[in-house]
Amino acid sequence: MSLANGHPYLAIPGPSVIPDAVQRAMHRASPNIYTGELTEMVPGIVTDLKRVARTAHHCAIYISNGHGLWEAALSNILSPGDRVLIPATGRFAHGWADMAQPLGIETEMLDFGKRDAIDPARVAEVLAADTGHRIKALPVVYVDTSTGIRNDIAALRRVLDELGHPALLLADCIASLGCDAFEMDAWGVDVVIAASQKGLMTPPGVGFVFYNDRADAMRETARCVTHYWDWRPRTDPDYFYRYFDGTAPTHHLYGLRAALDMIHDEGLDNVLSRHATLARALWAAFDAWGADGPLAINAARDIRSHAVTAAHLGGSLGDELRHWCEFKAGVTLGIGLGMEPSSAYFRVGHMGHVNAHMVLGVLGVIQSGMRALDIPFGPGGLDAAAEVCAGA
Amino acid sequence: MSLANGHPYLAIPGPSVIPDAVQRAMHRASPNIYTGELTEMVPGIVTDLKRVARTAHHCAIYISNGHGLWEAALSNILSPGDRVLIPATGRFAHGWADMAQPLGIETEMLDFGKRDAIDPARVAEVLAADTGHRIKALPVVYVDTSTGIRNDIAALRRVLDELGHPALLLADCIASLGCDAFEMDAWGVDVVIAASQKGLMTPPGVGFVFYNDRADAMRETARCVTHYWDWRPRTDPDYFYRYFDGTAPTHHLYGLRAALDMIHDEGLDNVLSRHATLARALWAAFDAWGADGPLAINAARDIRSHAVTAAHLGGSLGDELRHWCEFKAGVTLGIGLGMEPSSAYFRVGHMGHVNAHMVLGVLGVIQSGMRALDIPFGPGGLDAAAEVCAGA
Amino acid sequence: MSLANGHPYLAIPGPSVIPDAVQRAMHRASPNIYTGELTEMVPGIVTDLKRVARTAHHCAIYISNGHGLWEAALSNILSPGDRVLIPATGRFAHGWADMAQPLGIETEMLDFGKRDAIDPARVAEVLAADTGHRIKALPVVYVDTSTGIRNDIAALRRVLDELGHPALLLADCIASLGCDAFEMDAWGVDVVIAASQKGLMTPPGVGFVFYNDRADAMRETARCVTHYWDWRPRTDPDYFYRYFDGTAPTHHLYGLRAALDMIHDEGLDNVLSRHATLARALWAAFDAWGADGPLAINAARDIRSHAVTAAHLGGSLGDELRHWCEFKAGVTLGIGLGMEPSSAYFRVGHMGHVNAHMVLGVLGVIQSGMRALDIPFGPGGLDAAAEVCAGA
Amino acid sequence: MSLANGHPYLAIPGPSVIPDAVQRAMHRASPNIYTGELTEMVPGIVTDLKRVARTAHHCAIYISNGHGLWEAALSNILSPGDRVLIPATGRFAHGWADMAQPLGIETEMLDFGKRDAIDPARVAEVLAADTGHRIKALPVVYVDTSTGIRNDIAALRRVLDELGHPALLLADCIASLGCDAFEMDAWGVDVVIAASQKGLMTPPGVGFVFYNDRADAMRETARCVTHYWDWRPRTDPDYFYRYFDGTAPTHHLYGLRAALDMIHDEGLDNVLSRHATLARALWAAFDAWGADGPLAINAARDIRSHAVTAAHLGGSLGDELRHWCEFKAGVTLGIGLGMEPSSAYFRVGHMGHVNAHMVLGVLGVIQSGMRALDIPFGPGGLDAAAEVCAGA
Repeated sequence: MSLANGHPYLAIPGPSVIPDAVQRAMHRASPNIYTGELTEMVPGIVTDLKRVARTAHHCAIYISNGHGLWEAALSNILSPGDRVLIPATGRFAHGWADMAQPLGIETEMLDFGKRDAIDPARVAEVLAADTGHRIKALPVVYVDTSTGIRNDIAALRRVLDELGHPALLLADCIASLGCDAFEMDAWGVDVVIAASQKGLMTPPGVGFVFYNDRADAMRETARCVTHYWDWRPRTDPDYFYRYFDGTAPTHHLYGLRAALDMIHDEGLDNVLSRHATLARALWAAFDAWGADGPLAINAARDIRSHAVTAAHLGGSLGDELRHWCEFKAGVTLGIGLGMEPSSAYFRVGHMGHVNAHMVLGVLGVIQSGMRALDIPFGPGGLDAAAEVCAGA
Repeated sequence: MSLANGHPYLAIPGPSVIPDAVQRAMHRASPNIYTGELTEMVPGIVTDLKRVARTAHHCAIYISNGHGLWEAALSNILSPGDRVLIPATGRFAHGWADMAQPLGIETEMLDFGKRDAIDPARVAEVLAADTGHRIKALPVVYVDTSTGIRNDIAALRRVLDELGHPALLLADCIASLGCDAFEMDAWGVDVVIAASQKGLMTPPGVGFVFYNDRADAMRETARCVTHYWDWRPRTDPDYFYRYFDGTAPTHHLYGLRAALDMIHDEGLDNVLSRHATLARALWAAFDAWGADGPLAINAARDIRSHAVTAAHLGGSLGDELRHWCEFKAGVTLGIGLGMEPSSAYFRVGHMGHVNAHMVLGVLGVIQSGMRALDIPFGPGGLDAAAEVCAGA
Repeated sequence: MSLANGHPYLAIPGPSVIPDAVQRAMHRASPNIYTGELTEMVPGIVTDLKRVARTAHHCAIYISNGHGLWEAALSNILSPGDRVLIPATGRFAHGWADMAQPLGIETEMLDFGKRDAIDPARVAEVLAADTGHRIKALPVVYVDTSTGIRNDIAALRRVLDELGHPALLLADCIASLGCDAFEMDAWGVDVVIAASQKGLMTPPGVGFVFYNDRADAMRETARCVTHYWDWRPRTDPDYFYRYFDGTAPTHHLYGLRAALDMIHDEGLDNVLSRHATLARALWAAFDAWGADGPLAINAARDIRSHAVTAAHLGGSLGDELRHWCEFKAGVTLGIGLGMEPSSAYFRVGHMGHVNAHMVLGVLGVIQSGMRALDIPFGPGGLDAAAEVCAGA
Repeated sequence: MSLANGHPYLAIPGPSVIPDAVQRAMHRASPNIYTGELTEMVPGIVTDLKRVARTAHHCAIYISNGHGLWEAALSNILSPGDRVLIPATGRFAHGWADMAQPLGIETEMLDFGKRDAIDPARVAEVLAADTGHRIKALPVVYVDTSTGIRNDIAALRRVLDELGHPALLLADCIASLGCDAFEMDAWGVDVVIAASQKGLMTPPGVGFVFYNDRADAMRETARCVTHYWDWRPRTDPDYFYRYFDGTAPTHHLYGLRAALDMIHDEGLDNVLSRHATLARALWAAFDAWGADGPLAINAARDIRSHAVTAAHLGGSLGDELRHWCEFKAGVTLGIGLGMEPSSAYFRVGHMGHVNAHMVLGVLGVIQSGMRALDIPFGPGGLDAAAEVCAGA
C-alpha cells in the first residue's frame, strides 16, 4: 500500500509546476506563423517579460534551454581571446565557463565553493589587479540551483563602479526570475538570462536574453556571435520570423502569454512576497528539524534563495528520503546536484506556481519520511512553518 | 499578498480532484456512438464498476446526478402506496424521502440526528412491528456527506434476516464507493447507488444503480418506474443506445474508463487502505487540536467515514476558516451542510485521487488558518498526522 | 495503404464536432459547487440558451440525454390517463410515444411515414374531432434525425389557434436548435426540448426544457411529474443546487458557456445562414449525383433540414460507402437509422461547428467512395456544391 | 455571413496539423528530468527518429528551430575559412548560406532559380573544377518549402562518388521528412537535418541532426562548433541532460513520442504512400484548373514535393484567394514566400497528419474561392482529385 496515488507533486527546482491555465493555453491547434493572432501577440510578450526583469532595455527570445542562453549571452559581447572573470558559487557558474571555452574565451574562475556566496571584496581584488581591463565581462549566477545560494548582484555592480572597471556584468537568473527579487536596471546589470521553466511556469524550451545599450555596444565588435545567437535581429524585428531566427515556438508562446498574465494579474511584488514567505516557512521547518538531527540547509540564512533549497542529510539519506517521498507520499524532491556525495543531499523547488498548501504538504511529507526512515529530527518544524504562513 | 496562488486544492467532499489522466482522456473529439471503439468499451466499464461495488449482479448506468439515482432506485422496485422505512443520519437520507414522496410512496423516517449513526436495534423494533410487511424497502445512506457519519450496513441486513423481513436493503454509496470498504453481495445489499464524481474521480453527470435478482423481481410489479429510469433495458442491452436510454455520455465514459483503470491498477484493497490511513492521519490532527480548543470532529471515532470529515468550530468560525484557507492558502474546504448554524462547521473531502501530500498540506493550512484567526488548538496535530503517514 | 490517417472527421448527425474552445474549457479541475465562479456563471447560461431558442420564457437544465427530456416535458404537464396526439414523421416522434406510455398517457399516433412531413390539414381533422378537448398536448419533432425531414411547427400552431383547441404544442428541437431557424415564442410553441450535443456543440449529457406560462399552468395539476423531472425548482432557484436537483454538471457547464459564446459572437442569424448555405451546397451535390445514379436524398427539397441529410443508395451500398469513407478517407458518416433496410441508407450531419472546408471535404470523399465502389452518379456534384459556397 | 466558423484547417506548409493524440500527450504536468519515465523514454525516441530518416547512424536532438539546425550541421564539420558549395533552388538553400557566413565559412552559390531543381551536371562541373578539394561540403535542400521543388539527392551522391570528391553531402529535410521518401543511408547522405513541426506533427521547437561516421570524423577538426551545437555529447550520452546540453524539452518529447508511435503504427511506407497519393490528387485538380485559367503549380511534375505545393495566380490573386479561403471558408493557405510578387502566389501544405477529407476539402474551398473572386479555371479539377483518391 502506498499513500502516493493522488495528484503527484513535483517539487524539483525546475521544471516547476505548470499552471492549468498555461497547460490549457498550450493545448491548441497550430496557428498561422505569418499573420494573425500569434504574430500580434509577441510584442506584448516581450514587454511583459521586461517588466518581470525590471528593465526598460532589450529582450531577445530564443528557442533554447539555459545552456544555449549562456552561449547566446557570451557570444554577443565577446570575441575569441577575450577574458572573463567568473566568481563561482556552486555548480552553474561553471556552466558559464564550459560554454565560454569552445568560443575561445579565456576564463578565470574565482571559486567560492558550495556553501558560500560570492565575496565582492575578493572580486574587487582581482578586478583591481586588472589594470589593463583585459577582463571584458563578469558572468555570475544570481541563484545557484544546485546549492540554493543567492549572490549579491548589486554589490558586484558597486565594485565595478568603484573601480571604474568597464567589464560588463552578466547575471544568470534562470532559477530565480519571478521568485527572488531582481532589478536589472536598478542594480546595473548589463545582460540577464532567464528561461521559461522555473518562475515563468512554462515548459522548458524557450529562453530570454535581456541586454542594455552598453552590452549592445560590445555587440558591434563581438566576433563569437553566430547567426542563431545574434540578439540584434531578434529585437524589434522588421519581419516576424526574425524574432526567433526562423519558425516561432508557437505553443510555448501561448503558454508564456498565459503565465505572464498570471504574474502581472497577481502583481510581481505580490509574487515575490509569496515566494519570500513560503521560503521562510520552509526554512523554519528545516531549521527546527536540524536543531536535533542531521538535516541542514546548505546555505546560511542571509544567502538563501526564495526559489530553491538544498539540504544535507548525510550518508545516502538524501536518496532514501527522496525515494520514500515519491513512492510513498506523492512528492518528487530534487536530487542532490553537484554535491559530494550527491546521495547525501536533496533539494526542494519552491518556485513559480506554488502556494501554502503545496509547501506545507511537502514539509508534512518530509517529516513523515524522516520518521519512517528513522532519521532523527528536532521538534516543532511543522508548527513553525504553519506559524510563518499564518503571519503572512 | 496571498499565499494562495499556486495549484489550487479543492478539498470539498465532491466533486473530488479529477486525475490528469481522466481529464486527458476526456479531452477528445466526439466518437461514433453506433459502432467502434466507444461501443466496444462499455461492457468492460460495467464489469469494472461491479468490481468496485463488489457485486456479481447487475449494473445500470444513468446520465444523471445522485438525486436522479435515488429516483431510479426507488421507482424500479416500488409502486404508489408502497411504504419505506428510512433510518436517517444527517441530511442525505432525507433526500431518499424527498424523491419518494412525489412518487406516491409512503415514507417513515427514523431519525438519528446529525451526530449518531443508525441504531440497528431501533430499526429492528420498527420492522418487528411491521408484521404485515407493509414496509417494502429500507433505503439508507452508507456515508452521509453532511455529517461524515458511516452507517453499519451489514448490521441492517442481519436485522432483516433475523426478523425474516422481506424489505429490500438499499444503500446510497455516492460519497463512499471506492473510499470506504463496501461489500454489496457479502453484506446482502439489494440495491446500491453510486456516482462518478467522488471516489470514481470523474466529473459529475453519470451515476450507477447496482441491483440484485431480488430487487429485479420487484421490478416486475413496480409501477413507479418510467421509461428513463427503467434499469432493465440498460442491463446487458441488445442495442448499444439502450445502455443509456438514448445518446451515450461519450466523454464521461472515456473519463470513467481511465478512472477505473487507475483504481484497478492500484488495486481496490490498496485504494481503500490509502483512504483509511489518510483519514486516520486527518483525525489524528483534528483530535489533537480539539484537545485544547473548539475544533471537534462531528462523528465519534467508530462511525467516521474514510471519505469525508465534518467538523465543528462554533460561531461563524467554520466560514471564517474556509475563507482564510481559500484566499490565503489555496485550499477550498467544504461548507457546513445541513448543520445549525452551518457557518460553525466545515468539511474536508479526502476521497478519490488523494495522497499524503494533499492531506498533510490541508492540515498544515488549517493549522495556519486557526493561528491566523486566533482560534485556539491543542499541540501536536501536524506531528500526529505525519506520524500516521510514516507508519503506513 | 489508406488515406484516412489525418484529423478524423465525424459527420454523423450528433454528437457533432466539439470546437477546440469547448474542449479546452472542459479540461479543468473540478470547481466548488457551493460558491464562486461556477455558481455565478449559470444564470448567464440560462439567459443565453433562451436567446438561442428565441424565447423570453423559462428554461430548465437537466443532466440527461434527449430521451430523458421527452420524459421531463411530458411529465410536467400531464397526468395518467391524459391523451396526446403525436403526428409522426420518421423515427423520433415514436420516442415521444415510448416515453409517454409508461407514464400512463394515452397516445394517438398520426403517422406520416418516413418520407413526408406532417400534414397540418390531417392534424386539424383529428383535433377538430376532439370536441371534448381530451387531447392535452401535441408533441412533435421539428427535425427528425433519422429521415432529415423538417416539419412546419408554426403551421401546427395555426391549426390549434384556428380550432381554438387548447392542447399544448411541444417541439423536439434536439437535432435542430442552432441549425434550423426556430422561433419558440413567435411560433407559439409551449414546450421545447433541446440537448447539448448537436447545434450546441458540447458533449452529450445535458439537456434543456424551455416552457412558457401556459405550460407551467398545466404543471399545477400534472401528476406524472417526479422530483427529478420537476421543472419548477430548476427555474430561478433560491439555492444553486436546485438548478440541477443536486450536483451540477460542472464540466458541461464550462463547455456550454464556451459554446454559447461562440454562437452569440458569430450571431445566431449568421449561424443559421451558415447552416442553410452549407445544406444547400450538400443538396446541390447529392441532387446532381442522383440525376444519373441511385443516390437520392430521402426528403423532398422543401422539407429538408439544414442540420442532417438522410440519403438512399440501395442494397447494402449505404454501409459499404460508410465503410469506405471511414477507413479509406477519414470521414465517419451516420448509419441509416429506422429505415428498411438500414444498410441501404446513410446520413450526413452538418450541424453545429461546421464550415465550408468540412462539408466540401465530405462531398469529395463521398464521390471518391462512390467511384471506388463503382456506384454510378451524375456529373457536376462537386462543382455545384462549390458554386453554392462561392455565392455565399 | 461566413462559412468559416467550423473547425479551422491550417493548410500552410508548416507548422502542420497536430494530431489530437500529440496535443493530448503534451497536456501534462512537468516530469522529473533526472530519473523516471521521461529519462527512460528518450533512447526509444532516438531509435524511432532514425527509422524515419532511414539511417543506422547517429542522431542528435536540439532545442532549436530549423535555422539553428543549419548552424548545428555546418558547425560540427567545418572551420572558419572552409568552403562549401550550395546548389540552390528556391529560398531555403540561401538559409544554409546565411548561417554559414557568420561562421567564417566561404560559400559558393549555384543558383537554379525558383522553378528548376538542382541540375547534378552543373554541380558536377563545379566539383570537377575543385581539384584541390577546397569544397568541404555540399549543403542542399531536399524539398524547398517556398517553391515546392524536390531535388534529387541521390544524384548528387553519384556525382560526388563519380568524381571521387570527398565533400560531405548535407540534406535539409525539414519540410519533407516523413512526407517525401528519403533514404539517408541508401542515398549516401552524410548529414540530415529535420524538425518537429512538419511531417513529425509536433509543435515547433525541437530539431534533429542525423550524421554518419564520415561526418563525425570531420567533427574532430571542426573549429566552428560551440558547446551548444556540439553533436557528440548529445549522442548516446552518459548523463541524461547531455542529450539536450541542459534541460530537456519535456513536453515536446511526450508529443514526439506520440507522433512517432502514429507513424510507425501506420507504417512509414504507408505514410509515404498516403502523401504521394494526396499530392497527386491535389496536382490533378490544380493541373485541370490551370488548363483554362491562370493557376499554375510552380514546379514541373517530376520535381514536385509530396509535402507542399506552391502555385502562381498572378496579380495579387494569391493574397485575395488566401483571404477568401480563410475568412469565408475556414482554410488558411500558406503565403507566397520568396516569390516576386509574393501576392501572386499561394502555397498548400499537405504534410503530416493529412487525409483525403482534408485535402479534398481544401480543393473544394479553393475552387469556391476562385469562383467567388471570378478567377477563371478549367473544368474537372475536383472530379480529377476525387478520382485519384478513389484509386488509392
